[in-house]
Amino acid sequence: MSRSEFDIITHYFSHANLGFAAEGVALGIGDDGAVLSGTGDSALSMSMDMLVGNVHFPASAPARAIATRALAVNLSDLAAMSAKPLCFTLGLAVPELNEPWLKDFSEGLSEMAQRFHCPLVGGDLTRTAPDAPLTIAIQVHGLHGQSKPVLRSGAKPGDDIYVTGKIGDGALALLSLGLKSRLDFSLSKPIDRLSSEAKKYFYEAFYQPEPRVGLGLALGNSINSSIDISDGLMGDLGHILKASNVAAVIESESLPYSDYALDMVSKQSCLIAALFGGDDYELCFTASSGSERKIKTLAKELAVEVTKVGKIVEGSGVSVISGQGQVLDMSNQAYDHFRETAA
Amino acid sequence: MSRSEFDIITHYFSHANLGFAAEGVALGIGDDGAVLSGTGDSALSMSMDMLVGNVHFPASAPARAIATRALAVNLSDLAAMSAKPLCFTLGLAVPELNEPWLKDFSEGLSEMAQRFHCPLVGGDLTRTAPDAPLTIAIQVHGLHGQSKPVLRSGAKPGDDIYVTGKIGDGALALLSLGLKSRLDFSLSKPIDRLSSEAKKYFYEAFYQPEPRVGLGLALGNSINSSIDISDGLMGDLGHILKASNVAAVIESESLPYSDYALDMVSKQSCLIAALFGGDDYELCFTASSGSERKIKTLAKELAVEVTKVGKIVEGSGVSVISGQGQVLDMSNQAYDHFRETAA
Repeated sequence: MSRSEFDIITHYFSHANLGFAAEGVALGIGDDGAVLSGTGDSALSMSMDMLVGNVHFPASAPARAIATRALAVNLSDLAAMSAKPLCFTLGLAVPELNEPWLKDFSEGLSEMAQRFHCPLVGGDLTRTAPDAPLTIAIQVHGLHGQSKPVLRSGAKPGDDIYVTGKIGDGALALLSLGLKSRLDFSLSKPIDRLSSEAKKYFYEAFYQPEPRVGLGLALGNSINSSIDISDGLMGDLGHILKASNVAAVIESESLPYSDYALDMVSKQSCLIAALFGGDDYELCFTASSGSERKIKTLAKELAVEVTKVGKIVEGSGVSVISGQGQVLDMSNQAYDHFRETAA
Repeated sequence: MSRSEFDIITHYFSHANLGFAAEGVALGIGDDGAVLSGTGDSALSMSMDMLVGNVHFPASAPARAIATRALAVNLSDLAAMSAKPLCFTLGLAVPELNEPWLKDFSEGLSEMAQRFHCPLVGGDLTRTAPDAPLTIAIQVHGLHGQSKPVLRSGAKPGDDIYVTGKIGDGALALLSLGLKSRLDFSLSKPIDRLSSEAKKYFYEAFYQPEPRVGLGLALGNSINSSIDISDGLMGDLGHILKASNVAAVIESESLPYSDYALDMVSKQSCLIAALFGGDDYELCFTASSGSERKIKTLAKELAVEVTKVGKIVEGSGVSVISGQGQVLDMSNQAYDHFRETAA
């Protein structure tokens, strides 16, 4: 006997591993909507991302991996705003009712939800056409305590520019998974000769990007602007510059690449991957030079690598400077879901 | 030249008709997320619905109509909870970048957003496969002032059961639009002989269902439970009964059908449409008999038809009683996205 939508939601999505209680959530799954209350005067940030099979992830990927990635990229937005995860909602349009798949998907969500104390509180489950891609909408909600939301618009000339972790891995991960990347550089090491360790590293970089929630929260009032790197440093830093009406100089030699990236492709390709690749879900933020010591201390305490990669200046646009002080010609463009397929 | 995703969002979705300022919304479209603040101690209800082309609406329908319906069915959830609309987010996966379509879609959203003082504050726009259905995720957010959220779980034995407006029109609208309905009754009047007035009536019933926001807010503390009728009275009242651990008796003769419905199909078919049809987006709520006078006064003031259709009793399940006092055999089942296509 087939289960009804109602039964499926109850069975796979409202159990205690996923729909657990949390302070500030007065009512979770099971009514016309969820109810938040008791959050006092805290500002509430919320962010929605939509992920489509074979656009944002391979449709054939394990359900658990799709789930962890889907929630991680949303939590990354909360990290960028310096919000503490509160809860999330899920809209799921599935081409078929595959219960083992739903079970695995639910387990992947549960893992991330528990790690970040961010329960599922509601949403919608529906069926799409049998040949249509799986489509996931996730909205995350986060609270601001004493610190204000960190926006894209606060960068000031003189600010240092930082990134967390390694950048460029997201795009290289696509290649290492044998998937099409929009970046057309050739591999210095054929994919089938990558070590299993390297393959595992890139697999996790793609499917389990680490949302920098703890650091984002800690940085709060010490930084001036922030964004998460989903479309490549050029594009995302570009959003900060536009919102703040400033320009940036990036020192290419300072960009942090992983050893796996440097082993896989040339250093020039690492640069392209970092600037134009996307899918890194690291933070890019700016802060006055007076905050450098505090930022480094916090990063050390939280064991998150933070690298200073450039400066905010007056003007507009991003200049990338080589180790020899020359401006590099970067005629590529940041990733854009529409532009890339436009004629 | 093609526009980028960023430009499209700016052009079609963040203009003043749609992304307008509202109290409680500190930051709208344009950052990693939206920020709500200054809502004090108000509880916040939120509800997400996903709508898929050719599942929830004909993909060939006018963009404006798809938009008004998409936002209306979400606002209807807020009405059921007795929440005052605050803002909404939109996830849109489109198979192609059709700017005239986006313009019309944006206008439809703007119309509803302005009517209900509910601006768009964020979301995501992405491309799906060229042959995949348009998929819309909308999350609405609403505030509760002095009155608590009205839940499904508050019905008590002795409560009267009410519905707003006419019910059954949603399912008949599907037929009148020449679309497949899961209800297999035959039309008493062939569709092509429907008057243009009747066609217009059903078109609006389907694409512009009226979210009962004003009445939902006014009823607030006077009612015990509430839900909106999206899947047919049997199914949705069934959710109230299950959540409240009670049963219901519905008097079939009391159900309010529109004249257009009675003119289009037999009275028996109207009953089936009302009980099992869905897509009505009217409210079903329960209240103690002591509240009847107040409910009728509020309904009159707000010019919303409210009809008492039955009683909550102890036990489980719904009994439907004929005018002669006989229990009718209702062996059909409420609409279910999954069950209907299951083998």
